[in-house]
Amino acid sequence: MKIETGIETFRKPLYLESGRILEPYDIAYTTYGELNSEKSNVILITHALTGSHKPVKEEGSDIFNHGWWDALIGDGKAIDTNRYFVVSTNVIGSIFGSTSPISPINPLNPSDKELYRFRFPVVTIKDMVKAQHILLQSWGIREVQAIIGGSMGGMQALQFGVDFPNFAKLIIPIASTWATQPWTIAFNKVTQEAIKRDPEFKSGNYSIKEISENGLNGLAIGRMAGHISFLSHHSMRSKFGRNYRKDDGFYDINGRFQVDSYLEYNGNKFSKKFDPLSYLYLTKAINIFDLSNGYNSLGDALSNFKAKLLLISFSGDLLFLPQESEDIYREMKKIGSSELVEYFEIESSYGHDAFLIEFDKFDYLIKEALIGLS
Amino acid sequence: MKIETGIETFRKPLYLESGRILEPYDIAYTTYGELNSEKSNVILITHALTGSHKPVKEEGSDIFNHGWWDALIGDGKAIDTNRYFVVSTNVIGSIFGSTSPISPINPLNPSDKELYRFRFPVVTIKDMVKAQHILLQSWGIREVQAIIGGSMGGMQALQFGVDFPNFAKLIIPIASTWATQPWTIAFNKVTQEAIKRDPEFKSGNYSIKEISENGLNGLAIGRMAGHISFLSHHSMRSKFGRNYRKDDGFYDINGRFQVDSYLEYNGNKFSKKFDPLSYLYLTKAINIFDLSNGYNSLGDALSNFKAKLLLISFSGDLLFLPQESEDIYREMKKIGSSELVEYFEIESSYGHDAFLIEFDKFDYLIKEALIGLS
Repeated sequence: MKIETGIETFRKPLYLESGRILEPYDIAYTTYGELNSEKSNVILITHALTGSHKPVKEEGSDIFNHGWWDALIGDGKAIDTNRYFVVSTNVIGSIFGSTSPISPINPLNPSDKELYRFRFPVVTIKDMVKAQHILLQSWGIREVQAIIGGSMGGMQALQFGVDFPNFAKLIIPIASTWATQPWTIAFNKVTQEAIKRDPEFKSGNYSIKEISENGLNGLAIGRMAGHISFLSHHSMRSKFGRNYRKDDGFYDINGRFQVDSYLEYNGNKFSKKFDPLSYLYLTKAINIFDLSNGYNSLGDALSNFKAKLLLISFSGDLLFLPQESEDIYREMKKIGSSELVEYFEIESSYGHDAFLIEFDKFDYLIKEALIGLS
Repeated sequence: MKIETGIETFRKPLYLESGRILEPYDIAYTTYGELNSEKSNVILITHALTGSHKPVKEEGSDIFNHGWWDALIGDGKAIDTNRYFVVSTNVIGSIFGSTSPISPINPLNPSDKELYRFRFPVVTIKDMVKAQHILLQSWGIREVQAIIGGSMGGMQALQFGVDFPNFAKLIIPIASTWATQPWTIAFNKVTQEAIKRDPEFKSGNYSIKEISENGLNGLAIGRMAGHISFLSHHSMRSKFGRNYRKDDGFYDINGRFQVDSYLEYNGNKFSKKFDPLSYLYLTKAINIFDLSNGYNSLGDALSNFKAKLLLISFSGDLLFLPQESEDIYREMKKIGSSELVEYFEIESSYGHDAFLIEFDKFDYLIKEALIGLS
């Protein structure tokens, strides 16, 4: 499989939903497989909160959590790179190469080392989608076969269907929602407050070098809360039970269960690999995401849809409930778009994380939907 | 209704499950109604994590969250103080008058101002129960009609049934469990880490005065996570929806939804009213609670039971799932104690908080069970 990766710089302003402007801006991307001469075999993969433009495992890559959809993308896999030219981009606001809060505010003047930090504009899911559309257009791609993403990636896929109705033939949002609900906003709040109240965050003026070496407690604590939201009561019970660490005292106030160790280890690790400002901006984008923004109703927004829509949810997902995908399904039927939409709720005890784990249970749905296009 | 409140000091050592000793120790209590001459009309109410010995509203009381079961206890209420002498004590480890981590380590020498802090021993649910039993015994009470408590209070009620089988005629654990599961341990972990990593916590050597004035960020953040666990996806959706604060900018990185404000307000308030060390010790007690500790199985522990057992759970409770109460019910039947046990799962969308809200849905169960005793 041919893999190409790079960063495209755009000099023209990106007009944001907020009325603010991002100029210039970079978009990091990776492509898998080969673009055919008609440029008609493209699939766009959109990533989740802490994902990147590296869904496929790459030897030597040090990008955090890269290879997150390795099981789905590749030669002969559900998203078959023998057939499709698969594109994945790092969203605006994320730190793996695209313009983010820790990018230079004035990159055209390399002697100016000033970073955006809190001067970075709020970027929405709509803005992320717009930027990706511009990138693909700049490559001469006028239409894609499919847009597929999980969680925040699913929000982007849905937004593509509403904002650029003629762009994709098929939209597959997985473990996602049409509007983020307060339970999820609340989890994000815990992380946001933990970050902002950490003295080492220094109101956004932290040392990037220091944080990449030592991590930030606030981000680590928030990530621990995040891990709870990604899992479920049942998945934790089967994964950890009440197993206690063998080397910790049972009556020691600092003694730990295995679930404690898991959260500690992953929280600490994450806080060295990700960036606190970027986390604030991306969770903000997730929180204010509502497909019906600017429309009278969800139905009104969905009436733009021309693409086929395959909705996939997981029964144990507490972050984005199956009900929220079902809302979209019901609404599509109500507005007379039954023939466009299909909905599957997959039985899983892995919680929200299922979209990164239970590939066997939904890869065939993606495969069949892609076959259905030709 | 007659209300009496006080603190009893015990000079004899309290031998703890850990092998350590608490000596001397105080127990704060409140009583409602009048003790009959046979001392046979007692009901003991056990409190939850941040509860106190003040379940009934009292004018002028500044104890945090007091009056938490006001709807259940009083003249003519389900727990009828015309008939019963209702006792509620503050558990060992909590800060409302009983001996806790912020008590003097040497109270018999008033010139010694040194507090326990991290030298305080880990106290278990079993220890809390033992101390309450000693208090009631010291009053000449050899038997109680019932022990009733929610959440951590339910753990105490269950532990009473196992450790002192002839003490209570009726045990009513509400929204509780027989062993804390990893989902709940994980939520406690977030708070514990947020506290311990807060520089103002000073490894437990914080200024109590300063914290009561300004709060502790770590405790506030942890409490925000706690509030998520007390509620549910559905209760948050109906309580807050996606309502945005009218005075906050939608595209402002610090702009807030109403759910954000709720968490912020309650987290900040709580961090001034409660104590971080006590929170660490009480969540430790909750985490290591397992009714089968020291027995081969839950069934073995439950075979001690002679009291009637009325189990009440709430369908939307994510902290202590209905399934966990049902485990006890099933186990009681398995060991041939069917005639002792009844189980009710109450439909509720309030999550764990239901035991502090949905009184109409379960007070009649308590009332009927008490009538059944006579």
